[in-house]
Amino acid sequence: MGSHAVSLLSGGLDSSTVTTIAKKEVENVNALTFFYGQSHSKEIDCAKVIAKLLEIEHTLVDISFMEKISWHSALMNPEKFPIPDNRNNIGMGFSIPITYVPLRNTIFVSLAASLLESNILSSIETDGENPKNIEALIYMAPNAIDYSGYPDCRPEFYERITETINLGSKIYTQYGISFQIKTPIIDLSKSDIARLAYKLSVPIEETWSCYRGKSIPCGECDSCVLRAKGFKEAKLVDPLVRQK
Amino acid sequence: MGSHAVSLLSGGLDSSTVTTIAKKEVENVNALTFFYGQSHSKEIDCAKVIAKLLEIEHTLVDISFMEKISWHSALMNPEKFPIPDNRNNIGMGFSIPITYVPLRNTIFVSLAASLLESNILSSIETDGENPKNIEALIYMAPNAIDYSGYPDCRPEFYERITETINLGSKIYTQYGISFQIKTPIIDLSKSDIARLAYKLSVPIEETWSCYRGKSIPCGECDSCVLRAKGFKEAKLVDPLVRQK
Repeated sequence: MGSHAVSLLSGGLDSSTVTTIAKKEVENVNALTFFYGQSHSKEIDCAKVIAKLLEIEHTLVDISFMEKISWHSALMNPEKFPIPDNRNNIGMGFSIPITYVPLRNTIFVSLAASLLESNILSSIETDGENPKNIEALIYMAPNAIDYSGYPDCRPEFYERITETINLGSKIYTQYGISFQIKTPIIDLSKSDIARLAYKLSVPIEETWSCYRGKSIPCGECDSCVLRAKGFKEAKLVDPLVRQK
Repeated sequence: MGSHAVSLLSGGLDSSTVTTIAKKEVENVNALTFFYGQSHSKEIDCAKVIAKLLEIEHTLVDISFMEKISWHSALMNPEKFPIPDNRNNIGMGFSIPITYVPLRNTIFVSLAASLLESNILSSIETDGENPKNIEALIYMAPNAIDYSGYPDCRPEFYERITETINLGSKIYTQYGISFQIKTPIIDLSKSDIARLAYKLSVPIEETWSCYRGKSIPCGECDSCVLRAKGFKEAKLVDPLVRQK
């Protein structure tokens, strides 16, 4: 059976590109999509379509509980903390912006690792797979633009949390399988990502990046501005914007 | 305002004792109780009563999503993986038992840290508290009996995850506040814990330890057997059992 992966798939351009890479590199890929009260169904529908097009298993998980836990954030609590229009200040601030969700990637890696460990334990203990043949891979889509702002998007964070999930897991402690976190676009600019998505035939027109839950991208939030800038610099057309 | 803590409170003897310690040591304590589909209301009711008696804030969070994520476990999926009667084999096995929940404590620490960071960011950014005066404390109740079996109950796991949540957080990166995880009963035996609970006037008769969701403790599951053994060795009466 070989390698197992869980790939976090929000339905955006970045995670769709990363999940396409996972599908090319790993035998058993399980896409994992989180949704919560504030999520718009548009984003979740996009994730479903991408997973279906890639022909991979898809787990959808309601993480509405995060609104009570990670409440001090514009992404969790937009009525209390409005999402800023930030067109002139992308990644340039010295302070971490209010769109930071407390410990979000720590939580997301933990959940991805738990699903991956469950899948692998089942392969070993139920299906009799040999642990020596198994790799445990988590695919995620942080990138350079993010980690100028968010502490949990930096490479050193991913190194440290890999050590932590190894120490805390049965697959490592009992079966000697090390987790690996793959962040294949961490050093890419948005224009690199746009080029890569074209090269890998990612279904770009099915992806969704806008922070706001309207029927078409708002064009004004951080995420829309970054995406538009990326395609423009890559001299490529964004088929999502074109089709509207 | 000073120190802030989140204390994980399941409603059992161990976490009730630890939360009582948190209340004695820290100014602002927020108890955090997780429940999910399999939880019995008995356990949650006990946690509510303990938090009320200790006069601390209490956050109850539905983590039913874990049944989809951490599915390879007797505690998440008892129909597929029955909970073993383990009276003659407490902590003696070489393999990690099926009651292990994949990456459970990694997930629980991440969630506790996210709530704690939200509370602290609010104190700093809304209430104007000086970061220099703030400590960030997470109280948890792993103990020596557990960590002979579960990898995520070992002291080295807690050291490593503390480094991880520091690296991934805004309160550390921007405000210089280090998380500390307090595991005050980690080296205690169950009889030590029973003695400590008596000494601290923990409302023992309001706590609940049984894995099975009946109206009275089953007396047969790992947790009941360990608890009974602890009180017996401490030469103390368990008021929960006595009252039934």
